[in-house]
Amino acid sequence: MKEVMSLMDYRPTVKVLDATLRDGGLVNDFYFTDEFVRALYQTNIKAGVDYMEFGYKASKDMFDESKFGKWKFSNDDDIRAIVGENNTNLKIAVMADVGRCDYKNDIIDRSDSPIDLIRVATYVNTIPAAADMIEDAYKKGYEVSCNIMAISNSQESELKVALDILGKTSVEVFYIVDSFGSLYPEQIERLVDIYMEFAAKYGKKLGIHAHNNQQLAFANTIEAVGDGVDWLDATYASMGRGAGNCAMELLLGFLRNPKYQTYPAIQFVQNYMNKLKEDGVVWGYDLQYMMTGQLNQHPRTAIQFTKDKRTDYAEFYKEVVALD
Amino acid sequence: MKEVMSLMDYRPTVKVLDATLRDGGLVNDFYFTDEFVRALYQTNIKAGVDYMEFGYKASKDMFDESKFGKWKFSNDDDIRAIVGENNTNLKIAVMADVGRCDYKNDIIDRSDSPIDLIRVATYVNTIPAAADMIEDAYKKGYEVSCNIMAISNSQESELKVALDILGKTSVEVFYIVDSFGSLYPEQIERLVDIYMEFAAKYGKKLGIHAHNNQQLAFANTIEAVGDGVDWLDATYASMGRGAGNCAMELLLGFLRNPKYQTYPAIQFVQNYMNKLKEDGVVWGYDLQYMMTGQLNQHPRTAIQFTKDKRTDYAEFYKEVVALD
Repeated sequence: MKEVMSLMDYRPTVKVLDATLRDGGLVNDFYFTDEFVRALYQTNIKAGVDYMEFGYKASKDMFDESKFGKWKFSNDDDIRAIVGENNTNLKIAVMADVGRCDYKNDIIDRSDSPIDLIRVATYVNTIPAAADMIEDAYKKGYEVSCNIMAISNSQESELKVALDILGKTSVEVFYIVDSFGSLYPEQIERLVDIYMEFAAKYGKKLGIHAHNNQQLAFANTIEAVGDGVDWLDATYASMGRGAGNCAMELLLGFLRNPKYQTYPAIQFVQNYMNKLKEDGVVWGYDLQYMMTGQLNQHPRTAIQFTKDKRTDYAEFYKEVVALD
Repeated sequence: MKEVMSLMDYRPTVKVLDATLRDGGLVNDFYFTDEFVRALYQTNIKAGVDYMEFGYKASKDMFDESKFGKWKFSNDDDIRAIVGENNTNLKIAVMADVGRCDYKNDIIDRSDSPIDLIRVATYVNTIPAAADMIEDAYKKGYEVSCNIMAISNSQESELKVALDILGKTSVEVFYIVDSFGSLYPEQIERLVDIYMEFAAKYGKKLGIHAHNNQQLAFANTIEAVGDGVDWLDATYASMGRGAGNCAMELLLGFLRNPKYQTYPAIQFVQNYMNKLKEDGVVWGYDLQYMMTGQLNQHPRTAIQFTKDKRTDYAEFYKEVVALD
């Protein structure tokens, strides 16, 4: 049983990372107004958030800049236009996807960049490519974390090999990523156990990125904190692909470190996130995401169901069960 | 750590109770159409649900029958009109609130009633009255459970005295009730530990009734199952007071007993629960409930905020913090 005091006290090594622009950008193709991004930046500073992820460093060879908002590419100049010299306690992160990032060219030396943390995202079967990206970023002076995605569909034995390879790199943080929103807290606990073995062996930290398909993103995140995971991803109003993520406002209310403030988060949700919803941007828990989560499937069918404004959930259930 | 097999296998003693009419009735003053109630009854049978709670047995001296739908009072004849002789595996439950139920007159012998289970609801400070209601129902031939409400505001020492008194009664099930939706899974685990001590001593079973103020109703329910709690309350589409309850469709998807079927639940949510929402009945997770949950307050201020159709969440935050 976890200790009473772990709820009353706090662990100073816990870090909160705001992924609203990056995971939320998957919902609106990264078309956020500059006013929104500035307000989000100010909110994160006031709320005591540790890292703000601006978006992806997507390859401009692979993705057409005219078809996405700027945070798909997160040019250093665009970040600089928001944060200036960023003389604050809030650090700046971007995500670099294996196979979709021209990292040798697009990620410059940290000393010339407003970015502090490069988050490398990989599947279990592309770990060597991730390792190359990690070393590239590390040599350029960045903090580096690595998200291993879709692990609910990986074998434990493969995952262990992946963690052992990553352990030997310069990465600082291994992230547990529940891409399909299919994991229960009990499974998170067991996954943390596996990750922790390699984190301890190689002196790494652990992080968690949860999805809300079964209304468990917050529950899985606080389960992970209780199990010793330090890096916690969250987004305002849960904005993120499909069913969305762990809600920042729930997480800040749970954490006991007095540096975290809930009130700025509530103001931001009221003034900006609810406005996005009113303007027709759709995300968050609904039956179609529950179904793909329960079946441990990629949410793409559920996202399409949402885009098509379908409401025949029972018919959709028959379709996704047939995919199994 | 909980065992791997507890997720793969199932415990045949687990029971699911549908509280949609009773807790959901608090949202719409119990005005459900007969068609809705008949469809719910048929859904519960198809889904393998064990108990269906029809509503309260509220005192007609205290409450005006013209001001509520019939399930505030759950007359035996009204239940009979839906279930006939109820020759099914689904058992029928009603709730009897301490101090608000004329149980000596309104609860007749089980042999003359369609009801199987009387759920006595009490606060910690009215346990002797609850004990009297329990014995009355038991002598009339009913199964009897007891919900101890608002325990997040009770002292552990008081709770233990309450459980020791209840242990000596004829009640079969002690229910853990998170009335304010303020408890985290870690706290549920510790509460189960306390309840289990008395359940073991007196040969009782445990139940859980969760609220979704912090999006933890489902998470807390499955935490409780893992800890040995057998009786699980849920409602379709989470319908219930304020932020609502554990969603039936999530719970059925989690439980591994093949008697439980998710598909009828999805059909019912699509055809009936979503219709209620379209018709303007409002319940479910929102920021105002998160705030009262985080602060361990009764949700009445948040319910009023919802009724008033307010959207000034930050202002509301200042109001409820001032109540603390």
